[in-house]
Amino acid sequence: MTTLLSPDELHQRLLSVGAERYHDKHPFHRRLHEGRCSRGQVQAWALNRFYYQAHIPVKDAALIARMDDSALRRAWRQRLIDHDGAEAGDGGVERWLRLAEGVGLDRGDVAAHRGVLAGTKFAVEAYVHFVSERSLLEAIASSLTELFSPAIIQNRVQGMLAHYDFVSTETLAYFTARPSQAKRDVEVALDYVTRNARTPDQQQAVVAALVFKCDVLWSMLDALHYAYVEPGNLPPGAFIPEAS
Amino acid sequence: MTTLLSPDELHQRLLSVGAERYHDKHPFHRRLHEGRCSRGQVQAWALNRFYYQAHIPVKDAALIARMDDSALRRAWRQRLIDHDGAEAGDGGVERWLRLAEGVGLDRGDVAAHRGVLAGTKFAVEAYVHFVSERSLLEAIASSLTELFSPAIIQNRVQGMLAHYDFVSTETLAYFTARPSQAKRDVEVALDYVTRNARTPDQQQAVVAALVFKCDVLWSMLDALHYAYVEPGNLPPGAFIPEAS
Repeated sequence: MTTLLSPDELHQRLLSVGAERYHDKHPFHRRLHEGRCSRGQVQAWALNRFYYQAHIPVKDAALIARMDDSALRRAWRQRLIDHDGAEAGDGGVERWLRLAEGVGLDRGDVAAHRGVLAGTKFAVEAYVHFVSERSLLEAIASSLTELFSPAIIQNRVQGMLAHYDFVSTETLAYFTARPSQAKRDVEVALDYVTRNARTPDQQQAVVAALVFKCDVLWSMLDALHYAYVEPGNLPPGAFIPEAS
Repeated sequence: MTTLLSPDELHQRLLSVGAERYHDKHPFHRRLHEGRCSRGQVQAWALNRFYYQAHIPVKDAALIARMDDSALRRAWRQRLIDHDGAEAGDGGVERWLRLAEGVGLDRGDVAAHRGVLAGTKFAVEAYVHFVSERSLLEAIASSLTELFSPAIIQNRVQGMLAHYDFVSTETLAYFTARPSQAKRDVEVALDYVTRNARTPDQQQAVVAALVFKCDVLWSMLDALHYAYVEPGNLPPGAFIPEAS
């Protein structure tokens, strides 16, 4: 990528990263959505994914802390409201805890991240560090996996409701609001990236940031698949599902 | 752990962490040492492990930067000399590059970390961040996996020489010096930890730091085993071994 791309070409390049690397292509997600997971595997997914969800507002606060523009901070602040709620008992983190309870986990264990895989922790923490340490342009670009999330959410909700009798619409309430929130969030991020990636190097950094973020999501599923699909691979200290 | 342990009890507790969680118990290490790896799997191990090795002097420099005691900095500085060498062409990082070349990898690709797994990167970076951000006591305690490394090195060298015709004593030269270096390093670290973990909370933090470090090494092998042992799991962008 040595020439400057037009905004539309950059957008297409970002979409092609998702087509190759977004975690909807991961074997574990296919298992999950096609009904091939045991209840214990769904629990392990929810427990580990909650570690990610719980760090999203931390990541967004770290990002806001680096913005020197009031309008941009205000726009990004909506993400904190979405995840932490307008008041107690509301918001995406709370709805994820309910999802975890809905699939049979103990709320306290999930909230305390007991038994979360090291691979999950290291991936999520890499994301928080990336957003804190890289340029603001790269930090914002790493959020652009939300370009691809509405499609995976639709597959997930349909697939999980169809295949798992222990999953209800109420359990999956987290996902109801997400597609419209993601669409709005991605407009803010894409607008910033388009206006601020003005050299080939900057555009390359934007693409690399999206690759990095896809790697975060992908490697979380690698860790999950390795630990919970084939027997004998569970790392010391990891959540042990009840025999089902 | 609510009572204060004696130095010997603390030492025993640390040894018990290794007995449960050190990566010599990992299925991939058993494969590697028992000769059940293909040449491509040994290459993938060397490539990913080099990412760890290359960051060890970075980690040690971050640690030295936090020490306010000249004698302690001087003792720890020996690690920089061991890994970066007294002069060009010398040192542990260089010997690891030769190991990677010895098993058939391109030196430039390895040095540039091309195709390293995201799971490897996130684990290694978690270690560097841990050492930079936690207390100096925890940072030093996280080095104590060297309590266990002489045994694994002996198994590895014997096993690899016995089972792989593409591995020579010269290729494994890195490991020749390590047991005596590790023994000396661990004395420094253990002395510091014993003198400075003076409350039950501090002792618990020391044990947790060693657990964390075991998780780093273990999750590197989880990522490697998942990607390279069963077919169909290779993440996008990862090193692809030649068909052997």
